[in-house]
Amino acid sequence: MANVGTLGKHFIVEMWDCNREKINDPDKIMDILRDAAIAAGATIVKSFFHQFSPFGVTGVAILAESHISIHTWPEEGYVAADIFTCGDSTDPAVGVERLIEGFEPESSSFMELNRGNMQNKEAMLV
Amino acid sequence: MANVGTLGKHFIVEMWDCNREKINDPDKIMDILRDAAIAAGATIVKSFFHQFSPFGVTGVAILAESHISIHTWPEEGYVAADIFTCGDSTDPAVGVERLIEGFEPESSSFMELNRGNMQNKEAMLV
Repeated sequence: MANVGTLGKHFIVEMWDCNREKINDPDKIMDILRDAAIAAGATIVKSFFHQFSPFGVTGVAILAESHISIHTWPEEGYVAADIFTCGDSTDPAVGVERLIEGFEPESSSFMELNRGNMQNKEAMLV
Repeated sequence: MANVGTLGKHFIVEMWDCNREKINDPDKIMDILRDAAIAAGATIVKSFFHQFSPFGVTGVAILAESHISIHTWPEEGYVAADIFTCGDSTDPAVGVERLIEGFEPESSSFMELNRGNMQNKEAMLV
């Protein structure tokens, strides 16, 4: 198992050519972030949203199991997100799926990182 | 230049065998996080700290230029951090140096990612 001896899983997510209306709407971003957190099996301690002028939204959820962040560039159709969870009761990959369903990118990619690898303190790439 | 056509730089930071007193103290973590943000040339929009029972602190700063997160595992001496900034006026690598100075790890490693690479939408590794 890849995650034996690691403290957390961290997914870094790139989403391009997203739904531009959604990615400039803090309410819709909040809904998508919360849906992703719940689907990942995580517990939201607090969430925060900030709308930039003239474009762009940052949304962050502090989780009991680490965090989710979302940063949107509506003028580019781009969303940068990450989902970091620890513990055996969460599955951040499911959260990534929900972000992609929510933001409707035409293309997306992600990187999965092991955080806190106690067997090899240098290693992050899965 | 590696960052032409990218929207942001994202550093993922692993710190091991840190100062265990500091990494369970939200006030000290707040000081280190703010110092790192300022050193990186970033502007803090809002910061948030949560202390878990019995151990561990999460600190997140929402930046005008994206975010910094810190998650500590005092029982392991481990800190997971990331610094994500966009724009030409920030240097997240300097923020990483400040985190390392602050938490005093005996060993540390980091990964630098390009976020929002408009020339190659799949690429993140620098």
